[in-house]
Amino acid sequence: MDDPAFAAAQLVAQQLGARRMRLVLAESCTGGLVAATLARIPGISGWLCGSAVVYRLDTKQQWLGVPTELFHPPGPGVVSREVAEAMARGVLSRTPEAQVAAAITGHLGPNAPADQDGLIWMCVAMQRDDGPSITTASHCLNGDLEPPLSLRETRQRTAARCLLALIDEALSRLPS
Amino acid sequence: MDDPAFAAAQLVAQQLGARRMRLVLAESCTGGLVAATLARIPGISGWLCGSAVVYRLDTKQQWLGVPTELFHPPGPGVVSREVAEAMARGVLSRTPEAQVAAAITGHLGPNAPADQDGLIWMCVAMQRDDGPSITTASHCLNGDLEPPLSLRETRQRTAARCLLALIDEALSRLPS
Repeated sequence: MDDPAFAAAQLVAQQLGARRMRLVLAESCTGGLVAATLARIPGISGWLCGSAVVYRLDTKQQWLGVPTELFHPPGPGVVSREVAEAMARGVLSRTPEAQVAAAITGHLGPNAPADQDGLIWMCVAMQRDDGPSITTASHCLNGDLEPPLSLRETRQRTAARCLLALIDEALSRLPS
Repeated sequence: MDDPAFAAAQLVAQQLGARRMRLVLAESCTGGLVAATLARIPGISGWLCGSAVVYRLDTKQQWLGVPTELFHPPGPGVVSREVAEAMARGVLSRTPEAQVAAAITGHLGPNAPADQDGLIWMCVAMQRDDGPSITTASHCLNGDLEPPLSLRETRQRTAARCLLALIDEALSRLPS
């Protein structure tokens, strides 16, 4: 099975191993798929601490300390740069042995608000002596299908691949 | 794609919806695959709080409060009834809006100790007024391959299906 997310996971695993850095995740719309894709790689338990799959607002707040005022107006909403960043910072601070955290939140449909349909926000946070360094990015996933997957399933896989690519990119920028 | 884990996830989603009960997970060897399989179902965010994917000992202890003395001799080890139960109790107590928790820990290989190769321990905990009711089960997954998946990947999917079946079974025993 051709799986671009798995290829991206292998690149991330190689980088983590080469740099001896541990990764922790916080996933909303991907529902654990980023961690599950990495977990297919033998030996990844050396570098993957885990993933806080926070699928509801309460879980985001209670497990990761995401401020509830971000979720509702006048806050930016759950699919936003601010929530992705709060998720990454929250999971990094709760996982002392991780040096890198990555988070994703998105509306993958069906029934997403029209202006957010397919929108994802992602954040990679790296532990630094003076506080985490932060990289954020967003994408709007299109409506292309990959049968036999549904649109939702296609987008979950694409979203997982996007986050793995962002982690790879952030790790690649570190001095070797 | 024939996916028995997805079929099991659909049964669990139906039960949760019919009973208006929310589920939270704690996953080790499945690496988030149970949550990711449930997350493929539209509307599951009504019933799936999330999953604590605790892939390392530190994460099990720090996120879920699993006592570290369980991990090392004379404790029963990380793949044990006691750790599965501590994971389920831990995640249930940290997720106030969940009525059901399910946890899984296992050695899926490669390089598992011979007496634990393919062994999984699972626990379902249900919130009750007088404390959680607990169901535990173990399986030893065989070495059958489902190409093009590796043995590890085949076992991760089988393990995910086993936990979903245990949740379905535990929910089925409740009065309707």
